[in-house]
Amino acid sequence: MSPSRRQAFVSEIGEFQLIRALTHGFSPPDARTLIGMGDDAAILAHPSSTHLVVSTDLLVENVHFSKKTSSFFDLGYKAAVANLSDIAAMGATPTFILVAVALPSYVRYGDWKDLYRGLSIPCKAHGVQLVGGDTSGSPSSFFVAITILGQVEPGRALTRGGAHEGDIIYVSGSVGNSAAGLAYLKHKTSREKISNLRQPMKFLVRRHLQPTPRLTLGRLLSSRRLASAALDLSDGLSGDIEHLCQQSRVGALIQAASLPMTPHLIEYASQVRVDPLPWALHGGEEYELLFTVPPKKQHRLKMALKQLRISATAIGVITSRRSGIQITHQDGRTQKLASQSYVHFSE
Amino acid sequence: MSPSRRQAFVSEIGEFQLIRALTHGFSPPDARTLIGMGDDAAILAHPSSTHLVVSTDLLVENVHFSKKTSSFFDLGYKAAVANLSDIAAMGATPTFILVAVALPSYVRYGDWKDLYRGLSIPCKAHGVQLVGGDTSGSPSSFFVAITILGQVEPGRALTRGGAHEGDIIYVSGSVGNSAAGLAYLKHKTSREKISNLRQPMKFLVRRHLQPTPRLTLGRLLSSRRLASAALDLSDGLSGDIEHLCQQSRVGALIQAASLPMTPHLIEYASQVRVDPLPWALHGGEEYELLFTVPPKKQHRLKMALKQLRISATAIGVITSRRSGIQITHQDGRTQKLASQSYVHFSE
Repeated sequence: MSPSRRQAFVSEIGEFQLIRALTHGFSPPDARTLIGMGDDAAILAHPSSTHLVVSTDLLVENVHFSKKTSSFFDLGYKAAVANLSDIAAMGATPTFILVAVALPSYVRYGDWKDLYRGLSIPCKAHGVQLVGGDTSGSPSSFFVAITILGQVEPGRALTRGGAHEGDIIYVSGSVGNSAAGLAYLKHKTSREKISNLRQPMKFLVRRHLQPTPRLTLGRLLSSRRLASAALDLSDGLSGDIEHLCQQSRVGALIQAASLPMTPHLIEYASQVRVDPLPWALHGGEEYELLFTVPPKKQHRLKMALKQLRISATAIGVITSRRSGIQITHQDGRTQKLASQSYVHFSE
Repeated sequence: MSPSRRQAFVSEIGEFQLIRALTHGFSPPDARTLIGMGDDAAILAHPSSTHLVVSTDLLVENVHFSKKTSSFFDLGYKAAVANLSDIAAMGATPTFILVAVALPSYVRYGDWKDLYRGLSIPCKAHGVQLVGGDTSGSPSSFFVAITILGQVEPGRALTRGGAHEGDIIYVSGSVGNSAAGLAYLKHKTSREKISNLRQPMKFLVRRHLQPTPRLTLGRLLSSRRLASAALDLSDGLSGDIEHLCQQSRVGALIQAASLPMTPHLIEYASQVRVDPLPWALHGGEEYELLFTVPPKKQHRLKMALKQLRISATAIGVITSRRSGIQITHQDGRTQKLASQSYVHFSE
């Protein structure tokens, strides 16, 4: 694309050219897409043996993200992951995405292309097609609303409501990285390419800007009926465990010593002289899966994780509802784990 | 609801109470809703004999609507109709809706309830359930992004691309009312209840604020295979006929004398001394269906419309692509019909 074209306003580009430009990079239309973008609605074939999964997510400038810490590409990338992660948390397979964006007048065609390029990369990696959307001007902030569709076999969806006393609580990957990456970005005066950063910041910033939707793990848990409940970490562990406990009507006891933290996180915390535990407990936008597994299924889970080389760590146990949500610290103290739900960028 | 509760900020109301409050008024969950609001995604049963229909729409304050001319209730009502109308234009049956809203700080719980009350009325009238959404703060404008789902039998969807030379062009109901109603509202200094207005303004303002999605007509056209192409009038007749002609690769000749205008429209135009034709040709947000019918199906269409007491008027004929889009005026002059796509409120 020529530099002058990148600088053009989105309103100067024709509608059909926009549609062509925005679907580029996503999974191409196939036999499932009977009518894609460009009509009043999309018409899609849905496999008769599955249930439909659907979720919608809104990202608002200076509430969920800031242009100071995220480029248009970053924003698109993370918006796609946040939605794919909701599908992962249901144990489902993502299929289609619809994207509505409201653009302030400063947004150029090049920015808009970058946004869709960011959206398309995680989508294409998981076979997801762009089948609809809406583009509008905005008198002020930048808004992105995404709806994602997926499919799951009847009776296999992972909900937040199935955990029972005695179930083991697991978290995938590691926790705290995204919050630490954001903390680093907020202290920078200008944006830098991830590839130009040094470790441990490079790893942490990448986890913040380009998290991984845990779709393979979600499918493993649902297709083999291994988990009793699951959700993804979007608000932070302390807030999300509360959501799971509320819907399952149970309590939880977390072991601080078991929380999986990366050497990068520990190194950065040490450099900036803070305790990494609050990042691990309360940091949002982690997009790891938090799930519970009945004791008799532990062995099968461990074998399956090993076979698929998926990392997940037991971090606690489901308790009775009246016990509430507690945490045992490394020194043996057990106390109430207060939710400090992450309030996104404005925090 | 107590006056003090109406004045509370949405952020002061608990999440589960919000979910209870917002699903109230929509069609209640049934056997199709396996998991509704409150989990990472909704899980829905989709009938195996149908295709999935999906569309997304974005409404932005001071782009698509103004608080000066629309209340929160009006905004919700019209947002629901705009989406239902997209489903009607495909000849499909609407099923589920998801709503994402970003609220500036001035929005109170009572406003938010009014918005959802407005959304719920047209949805409930057509059996549509609210199954997902997202609520966020907004640093500035008010945004509503809606995704609607529906279903249609394979091969029956009405697209924009099937019109052929010689097909007759129809429009449902009447045209120009919504634009005239908006013109009236823009000259008012304060908002008034529709029921307090006098005719002809009462009728015109109601058509602007509470249009009707033409779902019965859409189903008639698709289930009996009567239409070769269809879309709904959201941008205005001149702009929407252009969309249809582009996708069908045809031209069109419209008869100005045939455009269905109501006595209310003609009376108001006469009162304010303007020609009503531009409202009829270019006014947006009409949500009537514009559709084309092969000559040999005219008789069956007329019989069916009569039987179901649905109003639709032949307004022109599909011509060859190289003829372009033309209009014959009452005085016999034929000229190019230039699209003046309605640019919503900012116009």
